[in-house]
Amino acid sequence: MKNKKEIIAGIIIIGNEILSGRTKDLNTSTLSKWLNSIGVKVDEVRTIPDVESVIIYTVDELKKKFDYVFTSGGIGPTHDDITAESVAKAFGEKYEIHKEAYNILEKYYGVSEFNEGRQRMSWMPSNSNLILNPASGAPGFFVENVFCLPGVPSILESMLPNLTNKLIGGDPILSKTISCSTLESEIAKPLKKVQEKNKDVDIGSYPFFRKGKIGVSIVLRSKNQSKINNCTSDVLKFIKEKKIEIVDRD
Amino acid sequence: MKNKKEIIAGIIIIGNEILSGRTKDLNTSTLSKWLNSIGVKVDEVRTIPDVESVIIYTVDELKKKFDYVFTSGGIGPTHDDITAESVAKAFGEKYEIHKEAYNILEKYYGVSEFNEGRQRMSWMPSNSNLILNPASGAPGFFVENVFCLPGVPSILESMLPNLTNKLIGGDPILSKTISCSTLESEIAKPLKKVQEKNKDVDIGSYPFFRKGKIGVSIVLRSKNQSKINNCTSDVLKFIKEKKIEIVDRD
Repeated sequence: MKNKKEIIAGIIIIGNEILSGRTKDLNTSTLSKWLNSIGVKVDEVRTIPDVESVIIYTVDELKKKFDYVFTSGGIGPTHDDITAESVAKAFGEKYEIHKEAYNILEKYYGVSEFNEGRQRMSWMPSNSNLILNPASGAPGFFVENVFCLPGVPSILESMLPNLTNKLIGGDPILSKTISCSTLESEIAKPLKKVQEKNKDVDIGSYPFFRKGKIGVSIVLRSKNQSKINNCTSDVLKFIKEKKIEIVDRD
Repeated sequence: MKNKKEIIAGIIIIGNEILSGRTKDLNTSTLSKWLNSIGVKVDEVRTIPDVESVIIYTVDELKKKFDYVFTSGGIGPTHDDITAESVAKAFGEKYEIHKEAYNILEKYYGVSEFNEGRQRMSWMPSNSNLILNPASGAPGFFVENVFCLPGVPSILESMLPNLTNKLIGGDPILSKTISCSTLESEIAKPLKKVQEKNKDVDIGSYPFFRKGKIGVSIVLRSKNQSKINNCTSDVLKFIKEKKIEIVDRD
């Protein structure tokens, strides 16, 4: 399916709290859906600890591998927030006060409340461009193709609209979901045939347990609406033949 | 902090549905908490697509890097379930019917209902050991240090107790959480000093927005309870000095 015009991204979730299981990662889902909507496909997510050498290594590897890289977490004011300094090192850039970020933060907090911890959030790689933060003031930043966002889900989400015109996407990836009351093992054979016939559509099959009901969601994904439509017809055909109940579609 | 006796694990979440943002990953949190409880620390999570070459490459890399590797997803009956065959290739093993798994599945479904899709779930790397599945019959498997589990969260969770005696853990990682009504930037400086004084305790600081309240959870992690206790005293000392309200502790 992959062609050369496909724009692909990697996500790096930085934070011991995710690795320890204490906090569930919500940012992958938010970022992926938003990236899909502007025609960027997420091909890999790495969750790594707040360890400088690991952040440097991972940023360096992924920035070469993907068109865009998004990091989440580690850009706050405390001692365990080491993303900005690590990204500077990954790019061989200085880590220094970003004047515009400093001014934004000073204005946000007021001169008398702009303490050392808060000032720390204006330190960035020297060639950073800012990503404005309507929710809580402190901006994120990007260096070349690496976009650094905060870990708090609501704040990260508030910053995405400010990024839209900074990314070049491909065609949006379209999808169709058909959820039915069946078991994967009941539809495996006909679904495989449909996949073989519709090679340009990615067909995924995901069992669910919802409100006491067991079922399977069949998800068709392609950049081409008419290919999705043809594939949908093929799926609906075997569902009808097998007298399987459709629970919902979207 | 890392010493040579630390047992570390990597997790591979396999599935386009996670990368597309359609489904949120719950398995990392479940696996990490359970691994922590038996003294295994998760050091990396990779979320990758249902693409054979990517699965092979990732399993091969992580099985050398970590004491244990856990995969989630892609072991069901449909065409997009390619984890077992990919893991076989990563180990240079045959992919074939596992007799014990075949018998378990045939008994679970009954001979007449044991169709081709269901039989597919008995195909595994030739040197697989089974991981029994009390929730839905189809077993997972492990080859050397790579443990393959299903993607459905409730089924994955049901299988973990059957794994306990198959893993050798280190000392459990203990933690203490103090959540208070403050901002990270208010406590960054004293918290940094506490971290410098307590080098053997990992101190994390995580802002939260909960029931309309803003706060910070300070999480202390170590294998040594008395070191956590000492560090807790240091944290409580500056919290008291700064007259910060404690919301809860655990």
